[in-house]
Amino acid sequence: MSDRLFIFDTTLRDGEQVPGCQLNTIEKIEIAKSLEMLGVDVIEAGFPVSSPGDFQSVVEISKAVTWPTICALTRAVENDIRVAAEALQYAKHKRIHTGIGTSDYHIRHKFNSTREEILERAIACVKYAKNFVEDVQFYAEDAGRTENEYLARVVEGVIAAGATVVNIPDTTGYCLPWEFGDKIKYLMENVRNIDKAIIAVHCHNDLGMATANTIAAICNGARQAEVTINGIGERAGNTSLEEVVMTCKCHKELDIETNINTQRIYTTSRLVSSLMNMPVQANKAIVGRNAFAHSSGIHQDGVLKNRESYEIIDPKDVGIDENSILLTARSGRAALKHRLHILGIELEREALDKAYESFLKLADRKKEITDDDILIIAGKHHVPNRRLKLDFLQVTSGVGVHSVASVGLDIAGEKFEACASGNGPVDAAISAVKQIIHRQMVVKEFLIQAMNKGSNDVGKVHMTVDYNGSHYYGFSANTDIVAASCEAFIDAINKFVK
Amino acid sequence: MSDRLFIFDTTLRDGEQVPGCQLNTIEKIEIAKSLEMLGVDVIEAGFPVSSPGDFQSVVEISKAVTWPTICALTRAVENDIRVAAEALQYAKHKRIHTGIGTSDYHIRHKFNSTREEILERAIACVKYAKNFVEDVQFYAEDAGRTENEYLARVVEGVIAAGATVVNIPDTTGYCLPWEFGDKIKYLMENVRNIDKAIIAVHCHNDLGMATANTIAAICNGARQAEVTINGIGERAGNTSLEEVVMTCKCHKELDIETNINTQRIYTTSRLVSSLMNMPVQANKAIVGRNAFAHSSGIHQDGVLKNRESYEIIDPKDVGIDENSILLTARSGRAALKHRLHILGIELEREALDKAYESFLKLADRKKEITDDDILIIAGKHHVPNRRLKLDFLQVTSGVGVHSVASVGLDIAGEKFEACASGNGPVDAAISAVKQIIHRQMVVKEFLIQAMNKGSNDVGKVHMTVDYNGSHYYGFSANTDIVAASCEAFIDAINKFVK
Repeated sequence: MSDRLFIFDTTLRDGEQVPGCQLNTIEKIEIAKSLEMLGVDVIEAGFPVSSPGDFQSVVEISKAVTWPTICALTRAVENDIRVAAEALQYAKHKRIHTGIGTSDYHIRHKFNSTREEILERAIACVKYAKNFVEDVQFYAEDAGRTENEYLARVVEGVIAAGATVVNIPDTTGYCLPWEFGDKIKYLMENVRNIDKAIIAVHCHNDLGMATANTIAAICNGARQAEVTINGIGERAGNTSLEEVVMTCKCHKELDIETNINTQRIYTTSRLVSSLMNMPVQANKAIVGRNAFAHSSGIHQDGVLKNRESYEIIDPKDVGIDENSILLTARSGRAALKHRLHILGIELEREALDKAYESFLKLADRKKEITDDDILIIAGKHHVPNRRLKLDFLQVTSGVGVHSVASVGLDIAGEKFEACASGNGPVDAAISAVKQIIHRQMVVKEFLIQAMNKGSNDVGKVHMTVDYNGSHYYGFSANTDIVAASCEAFIDAINKFVK
Repeated sequence: MSDRLFIFDTTLRDGEQVPGCQLNTIEKIEIAKSLEMLGVDVIEAGFPVSSPGDFQSVVEISKAVTWPTICALTRAVENDIRVAAEALQYAKHKRIHTGIGTSDYHIRHKFNSTREEILERAIACVKYAKNFVEDVQFYAEDAGRTENEYLARVVEGVIAAGATVVNIPDTTGYCLPWEFGDKIKYLMENVRNIDKAIIAVHCHNDLGMATANTIAAICNGARQAEVTINGIGERAGNTSLEEVVMTCKCHKELDIETNINTQRIYTTSRLVSSLMNMPVQANKAIVGRNAFAHSSGIHQDGVLKNRESYEIIDPKDVGIDENSILLTARSGRAALKHRLHILGIELEREALDKAYESFLKLADRKKEITDDDILIIAGKHHVPNRRLKLDFLQVTSGVGVHSVASVGLDIAGEKFEACASGNGPVDAAISAVKQIIHRQMVVKEFLIQAMNKGSNDVGKVHMTVDYNGSHYYGFSANTDIVAASCEAFIDAINKFVK
């Protein structure tokens, strides 16, 4: 029988400490409900004593969520614990997470104290918390740099005091996986009452090791992983929920099971990214835009011949629609042939060679090759008139004036015009386009990159438009970001308007 | 004496395969020169046979760079190798990187071949490459899933054929660190002529393990790490140069040295991000915007008391100016006191308590607290008139029209107006502001996030403005992205105009 790993999500506590990404209570409730649907075991909802907003959020999340345990953070301070208990009053399952720094750095420099005194405070805070709740988790802050023998004494002490879970954090993200695994092994072998509690780990990604450290700990007996969605968190962030869960799922030899419904990973990732306004980088493992996109010729050939050659995770398993293969200068003949096949075109070997040659020349200049380009290359482009084109665009906007846009579209050779106002120039331009194209289109994802080369640099716009239950991707680049946004919208529409 | 780790940078080959991020030759040369200054040992410059543009880039990078070895990728195909050798003709130090898939997945599904046949092809391609260059590196593609005994035979064979470096890639990013370390250990112990070549590793980050796998391999005898700047690359990307180099630097017990000038890491990271238009996520280890930013109250208190409590890397070591401590709802009393001290204000205990209470209330509503807010909180805000304010803004732009902006500023109560044109609405607005504020200001970083909630969502603008040798950060949020961009520019100016 597989061992069960408990997933403790701290997106709303440690994740929410990211500068500039704080959430309001309503947003936190939305994320908490999504985490419940994802199947996390524990939601760390906040640090109630730290601010009135945090207190309120813990109260409201406690009311809104049914199945996961709601956890509130405290320092080893009685008032913190009392306030946390009060904030948790409505939780169906509640846990107080209290603790103190145990490394010599913390003991000496932060507390100006001694090991014995800190051990006493650790035990005292767990005992105090036990007055309010049954489920008390203790954290030994900076355990990653705490000497093992002393750490074992602390763990033994807090378990004896009633701690149900003991959290071993690598607070600075300094440990290497085998070191961190050995630390957990040492505790499993040297703490006499270790079977009375669950060992948890909480890793940071300062050296890019958070996931590896967490998995190393699990292999050595830890049974709770503290994680955040998208790996967000202070500095370089926390361990990513999606990476730990999918590693356990892929590596069946670990024999570890979680309660996570992996097919909800992508949706949850996007919700957190959206509400926190924290874009997920394209090459983020599991949930990045490119995580499952293959562009190199060699690889595409492999994927097309046998998906397992290059893919260890089926995108469907994390809730992603399809394995998008983008065509670029690196794409091989097999990838071009496959795309042509999808477009309903079968070329003989010689014609394919010729098309491939033209394709490479174009791809050298153009960063992304559209289906339209491919039709031209294959000499099958007999539907140019059907295409939607931006004829003209004029936008007026500013501060103290309303935004208004006038748009001209060319559809199959016919000219259309419309104007609209909006709460910004892009909104106005898109509203004007919608007056011409009467369909239920919703802009879902909208990211502009206008980077590093000054205000007159080209801006790149990535946009996802929802229509009729499917997502369509639009892209454009222009020195004018408003024009680029409007063009990206039209690019997306062109993918479903035939 | 420390062991030397060779850094093989493949930003321009494997990194450049990212969909939508292809570079032109001039941009590649700029990055290659920056990699040379960073101190990488080998630059993989391209895959010459794959496209005319790639061929040309290898030629031009070979001419432009002096110290690093220039490496060109090939398949185990004679024509690939001939073309690579031709592309490398101007390189002062040159290497051909050839190889073939060795896992059963590749042998059966991709090549429809046998282990013996693949071994012969591996040896043949190395021998053929030796006709053109002395330095030949062999890759055993998907070595991560290749059975060790067969892999050892391949490695032994290609070393006997003259390979100077043998690359063991974890192509699918599937391995766990201890598995991958054991694989390298097996090769070190079972390949008879292993001392005649350097073992290299090339890891992918599909499960978030690339850095850990690379370090595990180094601990077991690998002496070349294949990496990219910012960890870019196909799917979830390659191993990050910065993470591997800084792990070796922090963990002195590994006793590994590289030739990297770590103080150039940040500059190089920004250059690659800029030219590839690939934003680095805020919580990316080492090079993310927040990598060294502490916002939680507990942590800030620790950092202020003793930097080592929470930081394992000095930001200066990677070329970052200062340890920016941002104030948010999580900031503690100590952080507020420290910021007040920087602003020249010392408050008594009681006054500080009162200021902290007001601070928390404001921080609950406002995501980032400015110095101005803090002055108001501390009751010391007697300089409001000095502030630059946007009075009005009107912009007209579009497709088929010129962009023009009219701007009104309020400076210390006096009104100023100006208008300007530009190659986009933001450029026009910023040019107009510059006509009023006559200073040498350069917009360096410029990122807009307008995500997930439709075209009428609030856009957030992050901007860095260079002035007089320093960077100033500006931020704004507005439903109008042009207005937000202009406001962010003014926000940045306010930080140096007194």
